[in-house]
Amino acid sequence: MSSAILKVEALDAERLVRIRWDDGEESLYPAVWLRDNCQCPRCYLDSAKARKLLIEALDVNTWVKNLTLLSQRKVHITWPDEHVSDFEADWLKKRCFSQKSRAKLQKELFLPALGFSIIYMDANKAIRNPYPHIGKSVARVPGLHRGAALFPLSTTPQNIVCMPCPSVQPPNASTSSLGCLREWEGKKSLCQWLIGARLRALVVSIIPPSLCKHMFLLFYRHTWQVQDKIDANNVAYTTGKLSFHTDYPALHHPPGVQFLHCIKQTATGGESEIVDGFNVCRQLKEQNSKAFQILSSTFVDFTDIGVDFCDFSVQSKHKIIEIDNKGQVIRINFNNSTRDTIFDIPVEKVQPFYAALKEFVNLMNHRENKFIFKMHPGDVITFDNWRLLHGRRSYEAGTEISRHLEGGYADWDVVMSRLRILKKIVKNGN
Amino acid sequence: MSSAILKVEALDAERLVRIRWDDGEESLYPAVWLRDNCQCPRCYLDSAKARKLLIEALDVNTWVKNLTLLSQRKVHITWPDEHVSDFEADWLKKRCFSQKSRAKLQKELFLPALGFSIIYMDANKAIRNPYPHIGKSVARVPGLHRGAALFPLSTTPQNIVCMPCPSVQPPNASTSSLGCLREWEGKKSLCQWLIGARLRALVVSIIPPSLCKHMFLLFYRHTWQVQDKIDANNVAYTTGKLSFHTDYPALHHPPGVQFLHCIKQTATGGESEIVDGFNVCRQLKEQNSKAFQILSSTFVDFTDIGVDFCDFSVQSKHKIIEIDNKGQVIRINFNNSTRDTIFDIPVEKVQPFYAALKEFVNLMNHRENKFIFKMHPGDVITFDNWRLLHGRRSYEAGTEISRHLEGGYADWDVVMSRLRILKKIVKNGN
Repeated sequence: MSSAILKVEALDAERLVRIRWDDGEESLYPAVWLRDNCQCPRCYLDSAKARKLLIEALDVNTWVKNLTLLSQRKVHITWPDEHVSDFEADWLKKRCFSQKSRAKLQKELFLPALGFSIIYMDANKAIRNPYPHIGKSVARVPGLHRGAALFPLSTTPQNIVCMPCPSVQPPNASTSSLGCLREWEGKKSLCQWLIGARLRALVVSIIPPSLCKHMFLLFYRHTWQVQDKIDANNVAYTTGKLSFHTDYPALHHPPGVQFLHCIKQTATGGESEIVDGFNVCRQLKEQNSKAFQILSSTFVDFTDIGVDFCDFSVQSKHKIIEIDNKGQVIRINFNNSTRDTIFDIPVEKVQPFYAALKEFVNLMNHRENKFIFKMHPGDVITFDNWRLLHGRRSYEAGTEISRHLEGGYADWDVVMSRLRILKKIVKNGN
Repeated sequence: MSSAILKVEALDAERLVRIRWDDGEESLYPAVWLRDNCQCPRCYLDSAKARKLLIEALDVNTWVKNLTLLSQRKVHITWPDEHVSDFEADWLKKRCFSQKSRAKLQKELFLPALGFSIIYMDANKAIRNPYPHIGKSVARVPGLHRGAALFPLSTTPQNIVCMPCPSVQPPNASTSSLGCLREWEGKKSLCQWLIGARLRALVVSIIPPSLCKHMFLLFYRHTWQVQDKIDANNVAYTTGKLSFHTDYPALHHPPGVQFLHCIKQTATGGESEIVDGFNVCRQLKEQNSKAFQILSSTFVDFTDIGVDFCDFSVQSKHKIIEIDNKGQVIRINFNNSTRDTIFDIPVEKVQPFYAALKEFVNLMNHRENKFIFKMHPGDVITFDNWRLLHGRRSYEAGTEISRHLEGGYADWDVVMSRLRILKKIVKNGN
């Protein structure tokens, strides 16, 4: 972007600065916002990319005393107290307050969430390792090009479609795991694909290596082992069927992104199931708006009590369908096994709640909504734990461990941070 | 609690079970809720304290086929499909759906947030250590009894009052840090004090020892060093004044609890300031409801870009005053230095936003609202980062580091988990 300014003027009555651009567009900037965002070293700490100017020192009724345009690329402002500020044309253009400009910039910052996806690695082609730390798995994602499939989840009823990822050369096998990943980050074709519209959930290769060992840590350790255990402290650690759930609604801020790595798989049963919760919500709202209303307004108690990494006694309250101010679904919070026996609603609302929940669960189980697959040793899936619900079919218990998945979590803010950095790398052509 | 049942009956038309208790109270339980919460090994995994029964297997229109009262202490129910459930009287009584019972139980689970507090250790009496890990500081809290002061923050204008904590014997100095803390957890008087009404924020000694090394980890490491740095990646790492702020609003889930440990203090300047944000919000709402409305409805962009533990590029959108469905303030999200230059609101709303923010900041700075103190080496303060705003006065830069604080964060869910466990220890008299 290289923007040129044709004309700049101060609108004194409105305390605005108006800019006419060479592309024919026009922008308005409030004087107080310009003063607040002065980029001089007294007002802005460039090393921290942060504001030094305090609100205490800001005159919210300030106006422009004098204004000059320098070679179409810079606006020079003198303020009533003689402080001066320079603003680059590109910097200003990017921050134009028009609805269109703001929407464009927000899309760049937060990446469009048009679709969410999981990645599934072909068992036969993936490198095997009986007990890898999830960090190592991450570095092994280059196995992708040897048969990985991507399932973007659209908002259509047939919401799971296979899509191959671009063929990318694997990194030099002799480099370290960390080097591996760094090398991969530089691969333009993969990065471009990663930052594409549908990839908010494809995070296998975008966790910074230095954070791998420090994934979302809570009471179940950095990574946790899904296998049949004596005195299981979680229903996942049995051989029983797990119906569709999101992980860890007992936390008020449940993990955003989930990783599951198959280390060992049982011969019969143990298939994985996933469903797009947002899609199911859309259907529920259409078909039974009362049920949708109940699930998006009733606070449900969740609980998790036990010992793992250390002893814990966790309690939360969530709406199973969480919506924003505009009624858009932003997160599903539902795990039937940790839904508390304690239920903090008036007695007359209890039966309607169960009826609504049953409708929701029935829709999840519709054949056209769910996707069933079996993981094989070496497979890694990763998905948006705020949108997708997952489950597993039961399998037979034996004297030995016949099935073993290793899991981990990452926070959406951490993942999005990485995506923004990758995007910049691609843009700069590194 | 030991509850006796005088009478139990099934109200078939309403699909309810009615219980008359020996204390004269009456409770109603929906049949579907009872069936859903059957405690038998087929329906409930006791080792995980979690439900095994799936929604798929629950008849939401179920009714009670047969019902028996066993010696006033147990209700035995036979369901239409011949499944049987037993419910203990105490278990039922605790889960009574009356408004009063539910309110009592929720208070027990989430602890009343009547006041929030900080703890301040007397410099002269605390044990000194030039570069302690915050984990070690935690174990050193026993120093408390030798001169600590507590400042509960009430909702009155004069909101900061000193209050001594109870005198508790220090643990045996020869035990390890971890042993130390365990011993402390067993001290009934301290525990009772900890779980008192005003102590949601007094968390110094309630982080599980095993979690000390794994506090809230993000881009600034487990603990971070507040001192004057060359090319500071954060305005806190300078000698400048920091106006009132909450930490890390650039995250969508900012840290709930903050620790600050003073290791070195400068001779002149560098005083700490705190203010009760909820109290200031109350004043703002009373004095300028329009400003309150603007700050509790406008999404503000926050940003944090740089390198520390690894490179990061974090973006968030928050309302500075976050309220719940009922209009209650639940969190303040405000750091003027990381408030983005990008501002995603229509141009005509910009100046009113700044005017509202200035009102809010002016109220924080009112003499009767803020508390000013100077930390000394060895002091630890800990506070609710969702409610309190903190700041520091500027000090003079020198050739050497003249001031050094070490900080860390913990999540409210982790802290509350510990409080629930401590509460149980006290109750059981251990």
